[in-house]
Amino acid sequence: MFTPHPIGFVASPYKDAAAIPKGLGARHDAEGGLKILPEFELGLTDIEGFSHLFVIWEFDRADGFELVGKPPTDDRPHGVFATRSPRRPNPIGLTVVELLGRDGSLLHVRGVDMLDGTPILDIKPYLSSIPAETLRRGWLAEAEARKA
Amino acid sequence: MFTPHPIGFVASPYKDAAAIPKGLGARHDAEGGLKILPEFELGLTDIEGFSHLFVIWEFDRADGFELVGKPPTDDRPHGVFATRSPRRPNPIGLTVVELLGRDGSLLHVRGVDMLDGTPILDIKPYLSSIPAETLRRGWLAEAEARKA
Repeated sequence: MFTPHPIGFVASPYKDAAAIPKGLGARHDAEGGLKILPEFELGLTDIEGFSHLFVIWEFDRADGFELVGKPPTDDRPHGVFATRSPRRPNPIGLTVVELLGRDGSLLHVRGVDMLDGTPILDIKPYLSSIPAETLRRGWLAEAEARKA
Repeated sequence: MFTPHPIGFVASPYKDAAAIPKGLGARHDAEGGLKILPEFELGLTDIEGFSHLFVIWEFDRADGFELVGKPPTDDRPHGVFATRSPRRPNPIGLTVVELLGRDGSLLHVRGVDMLDGTPILDIKPYLSSIPAETLRRGWLAEAEARKA
């Protein structure tokens, strides 16, 4: 397979994992930056037109993986591919951010849930949504219902 | 950084890139499979409850990258991070699929736009959507307007 390399790094108010809001009802409206390396800046051409972006990044401080584990949103264990656990076979994270503005190779964004210094692997435009009324959210909806 | 390894492979009706619907108005409702390797099957526990999944995969047949290029949806060039081009600094693809059913380590899905045999890096539950009315879609919306 390919050898990953960072295209940039996240600037985030979160310096350690304990500071990141987790669990049911956690909100991710923290502002931060995507600092793209100068050699990739040209790849940002026309990105300003998009309101939202997918950011694909590395869980660089996760240690190994766990196929079944208890997420912070539930008191029951679930499979890693049914959760957003950092302890994944490939330690890849995915976050949707709102693009607030661009300043050369720096993107100002809202919605960071990554640690400061997190390596960024890719950025893609967010083009369409699944309508909320067609989504089923499995164990997460059940955990919310039990808590309500 | 980490060394990626496949957690499984895509079963797709598309055997070569030319067969994948592209351009404005392209629909991705092809059915296919996510064949997860037996050693990772336990990680699928409880995934059946989700209607939609993010699939993160490798563009394993892309060759190098191009920071600015012309997508099939437009006659003008754009930065790679503002498009879904396969020729990316890290050749990582992202697809939202609808989960139709599970048969052990095989997930039946709708919405594949990957080639047959594509290596899968990760699967995550699709938990929420950005409301369509808040999305801005930059050059893609402009290209659609010009064509309309």
